[in-house]
Amino acid sequence: MEDQSLMTDYLHEGERLDDLQRDGLMIIQNPSWFCFGIDAVLLSAFARVGEGERVMDLCTGNGVIPLLLSARTKASHIDGLEIQADIADMAARSVSYNDLSDRIKITEGDVKEAVKIYSAASFNVVTCNPPYLKEDGGLINPTDHKAVARHEIMLSLSDVIEVSTKLLVSGGHFYMVHRPFRLAEIFCEMVKNNLEPKRMRMVYPMASKEPNMVLIEGVRGGNSGVVVEKPLIVYADDGVYTDEVRDLYVS
Amino acid sequence: MEDQSLMTDYLHEGERLDDLQRDGLMIIQNPSWFCFGIDAVLLSAFARVGEGERVMDLCTGNGVIPLLLSARTKASHIDGLEIQADIADMAARSVSYNDLSDRIKITEGDVKEAVKIYSAASFNVVTCNPPYLKEDGGLINPTDHKAVARHEIMLSLSDVIEVSTKLLVSGGHFYMVHRPFRLAEIFCEMVKNNLEPKRMRMVYPMASKEPNMVLIEGVRGGNSGVVVEKPLIVYADDGVYTDEVRDLYVS
Repeated sequence: MEDQSLMTDYLHEGERLDDLQRDGLMIIQNPSWFCFGIDAVLLSAFARVGEGERVMDLCTGNGVIPLLLSARTKASHIDGLEIQADIADMAARSVSYNDLSDRIKITEGDVKEAVKIYSAASFNVVTCNPPYLKEDGGLINPTDHKAVARHEIMLSLSDVIEVSTKLLVSGGHFYMVHRPFRLAEIFCEMVKNNLEPKRMRMVYPMASKEPNMVLIEGVRGGNSGVVVEKPLIVYADDGVYTDEVRDLYVS
Repeated sequence: MEDQSLMTDYLHEGERLDDLQRDGLMIIQNPSWFCFGIDAVLLSAFARVGEGERVMDLCTGNGVIPLLLSARTKASHIDGLEIQADIADMAARSVSYNDLSDRIKITEGDVKEAVKIYSAASFNVVTCNPPYLKEDGGLINPTDHKAVARHEIMLSLSDVIEVSTKLLVSGGHFYMVHRPFRLAEIFCEMVKNNLEPKRMRMVYPMASKEPNMVLIEGVRGGNSGVVVEKPLIVYADDGVYTDEVRDLYVS
C-alpha cells in the first residue's frame, strides 16, 4: 500500500476515491452521504462552454460537475458553490487531489448569497443540479446530507433561477437537470426571470418508459422558442447502456 | 355510380369523401385547402372524455376531432367552432353525412367570441389543434384557407388558452397539440390563466429525431406538476408506423 500516506492526506473516514473515467480524474465520495449520479454526467455533457469562459456550478456537492467540465471544456475558470461545509471540504480535496486548483475553486456558501459572494453578471455559464423535491413540511432533518441535496430545504427552484440569472452576463447560458414533473414551474420561473428556455432534452430510462430527467438550457435575455432535442434513452431493451450514454462515460 | 345523387348532395366541387377508418365514419375534405393530419388523430386519442361530458373543439377545421371523439368517447355532446365559413359548412356536411347531428354541432364563428357564442364554464373538455406558427408580419393572405389554419392570423396562442379556460368548468380538462418549439410559451400562458399543465407527451417522428409535436393536457384550477409520458414514436427504424400509431388508426 505505497499510496497509504497520500490517501490519508486526502481521504477522511468513510470516504473513497472513485475513477471518473475521464482524463484520469478521480473524485472523493462518501457513500453514506451520496454519490454522484448519471444526472451530473448528462448535465456536464449537455452544457456548452466556450474557450476561456467563466463557469459557476451551483449546488456543486462533491464537485463532480466542475471536475467533468474541466476535462470536457476549455473554460478558463470554474467555481463551485456548496452550502454543506463537510461536502464543500470534500469537493475541495478532490480538486486539490487532481491538481486543478488553478482552474476550479470550491466555496462553502449559500446559493441565495451567491451574488454577494461572487458578483452580478460575472459568469458566462451557470450549471446546476439542484434538489429536485419540494420541501414537504418539516419531516426532513436539515442536517441530513442526503436530504439537503435532494429536497428544497435550503433552496427553492425559484431561488436557483433568480440567482442564476443575476450571476450571468447578458446572453449567458444556464444549464440545469431536473425532474420532468416540475417542467411547467421551471419554464414559468425562467421566463419570469428573463432566462429564456432555449433547448431541452428529455431523458427516458428506456424507450418504453416515462422520462425521469429533463435537461434544460436557458439564455439570459434570449428570444422565445425552445429547441427540443431527440430523446436521450439511457438503457436499450436488453438492459445495457445505449451507445450514446456509454460514450458519455468514456469519451 | 349509384351514389351519384347522394354524393352531389354532400360534396361540393374539389371535395372528396375519405374513410376515417373508425366505426365506418367518413369525412369530407378539400385537398386544395388542407386535409387532416396525424396531429388530429393523436390529439383525439390523447384526450380523455368521460361518459355524458360536454366537449368543445376549437379551430375544428373539417371537424375531424369531433367526428373521431364521437366514435372514441361517450361524450353527450360535441361542439366544433370554425372561423372560415366554407370550412365550417364542409364540417357540418360531414356531420350530417355521418348522421351525427344529434351529438355534434358545428358553428361558424371566431374563437375569441366563443364565450359569447356558448357560455362561460359550460364544457367539461376543450380540445384544440390550433394554428402552430406565429404570424410573421403581413406576408400571409388571410383569405388563404391553409394559411389561416397554420398561422396565428386570426387567433393567437394566448387567445386559445384564455378562451379555453373560460369555457371550462372548474376542474375541466384542456387538450392541445402544438409544436415543441412553443412549449415554454404554452406552459407560461396556461399557468397565467390558471389552466395548470398536468400531462404531456412528446411525439418523435423516429426515436433518433427531434420531436415535431407535443400533446398537452391542462386542468382548470389544477395543482402544479406535469406527468410526462413515455415518448410517442411515429415511425419505426424501417419507416413503417410503430404498433402504437397503427393501432390509433384502426382501434
